[in-house]
Amino acid sequence: MDRSAEFKRWKAQCQSKADFSRKGSVDEDVVDIVQLLNGREQYFTTSSCAGRIILLDGNINGFEVQKQNCCWLLVTHKPCVKDDVIVALKKANGDAVLKFEPLILHVQCRQLQDAQILHSVAIDSGFRNSGITVGKRGKIMLAIRSTHGLEVPLSHKGKLMVTEEYIDFLLKIANQKMEENKKRIERFYNCLQHALEKETITNSHPKGKIKDKNYSSCTHKKKRNPEAYGKCITEENDKELENDDDPGISVSFFPEDY
Amino acid sequence: MDRSAEFKRWKAQCQSKADFSRKGSVDEDVVDIVQLLNGREQYFTTSSCAGRIILLDGNINGFEVQKQNCCWLLVTHKPCVKDDVIVALKKANGDAVLKFEPLILHVQCRQLQDAQILHSVAIDSGFRNSGITVGKRGKIMLAIRSTHGLEVPLSHKGKLMVTEEYIDFLLKIANQKMEENKKRIERFYNCLQHALEKETITNSHPKGKIKDKNYSSCTHKKKRNPEAYGKCITEENDKELENDDDPGISVSFFPEDY
Repeated sequence: MDRSAEFKRWKAQCQSKADFSRKGSVDEDVVDIVQLLNGREQYFTTSSCAGRIILLDGNINGFEVQKQNCCWLLVTHKPCVKDDVIVALKKANGDAVLKFEPLILHVQCRQLQDAQILHSVAIDSGFRNSGITVGKRGKIMLAIRSTHGLEVPLSHKGKLMVTEEYIDFLLKIANQKMEENKKRIERFYNCLQHALEKETITNSHPKGKIKDKNYSSCTHKKKRNPEAYGKCITEENDKELENDDDPGISVSFFPEDY
Repeated sequence: MDRSAEFKRWKAQCQSKADFSRKGSVDEDVVDIVQLLNGREQYFTTSSCAGRIILLDGNINGFEVQKQNCCWLLVTHKPCVKDDVIVALKKANGDAVLKFEPLILHVQCRQLQDAQILHSVAIDSGFRNSGITVGKRGKIMLAIRSTHGLEVPLSHKGKLMVTEEYIDFLLKIANQKMEENKKRIERFYNCLQHALEKETITNSHPKGKIKDKNYSSCTHKKKRNPEAYGKCITEENDKELENDDDPGISVSFFPEDY
């Protein structure tokens, strides 16, 4: 079977399956992106989470969480208030941890070139921990990830280790990160549309050089966007990367912020 | 210039440069890996950080840190005690955040196949956020990253928001994560050695099927290793991924923990 036919088969197989996630459906904030990608013959999504605030209770044994014993006290894809967390924390008897997890999206791609286009869009939209996986059987997957997280231990053996005031402070930060994540998702959707349009035009006029002003300005906008809270962490790595030959994705952007 | 010659040129160019990182040298814990990779013609490292605990002070303006105003109060690649942080926090006048950042390593690879081998080793060793970047000019880069972080806001406008007892508790977790990170680095080094040996043998006996028991057991060991604190976060995504066709890297491992 040629690669294109094999990809079609994989896509059909994936799309015929039920959604086995706990929620059972695609998160609202990411539906447009998922539909846009799945509507293109060269892509299909295999998993997605738009971003969420979660509170976990880990059964601690020498600080090691046993995965099977980990309990979800709270999961929300919307901004969260202190009382929600305080109520959920009452059920904690291990080590509760509050996390903000940004968008994660796995997209299988027909060819490496398709993954490159999508990867470039992801990086330009602020999802700088994105990367391609090439499997042994030739499956090409792009994981779209952000650096933009939060992970805060709150209780130890059921005992709260912070004040309510701190939880309130923390949730302001978590909600702000969720807001920034949402902006990046919108940016990603817009850039993706432009990139796919551009590709369609290029493919139908393979010899013509068509300059896509929208896409250029889209990329440009991303570079200017101020970094969200805590983004300066990679400065030391950045400094090293600034002096490397970068791999050519968004040349003026990647070495600075990757 | 053919690809191989171009890669050689890139490598020579990169290695002739001074180390522009703040520290000015490769972190001790990652020296062996860096040397092993740079000693192979198909790889060279472009940046590395073995893992660190950092305390940042962000000048906050509506919860947005301006990168240029971000100040490093403390950076250590070794376990850290409460008093180090307490002393460093006295200098904070913005919003201080404590982070644990695991290993990050960027490796440029000659061919996609070389990146695939290294990616597989990284995933098997627990660095599940690793991914390949293919640049427009054909540069192939693998970023080796872990999911294994910590990011905890500690003060707001210079005012400490947590107790000393909490900082002590937090540092136990950060130090434990650093220890786990170190184990993964060792595992990565061992797996890498096996993978490179296996590749050398395969290349010198291209038609012989040589089963490398060491490498198999190395991969196997990784799967059994208990997940560190907080690793259960991706469970919901995992559930979705478990039902996907995985991209073939470490088939029994990737869909469960990616």
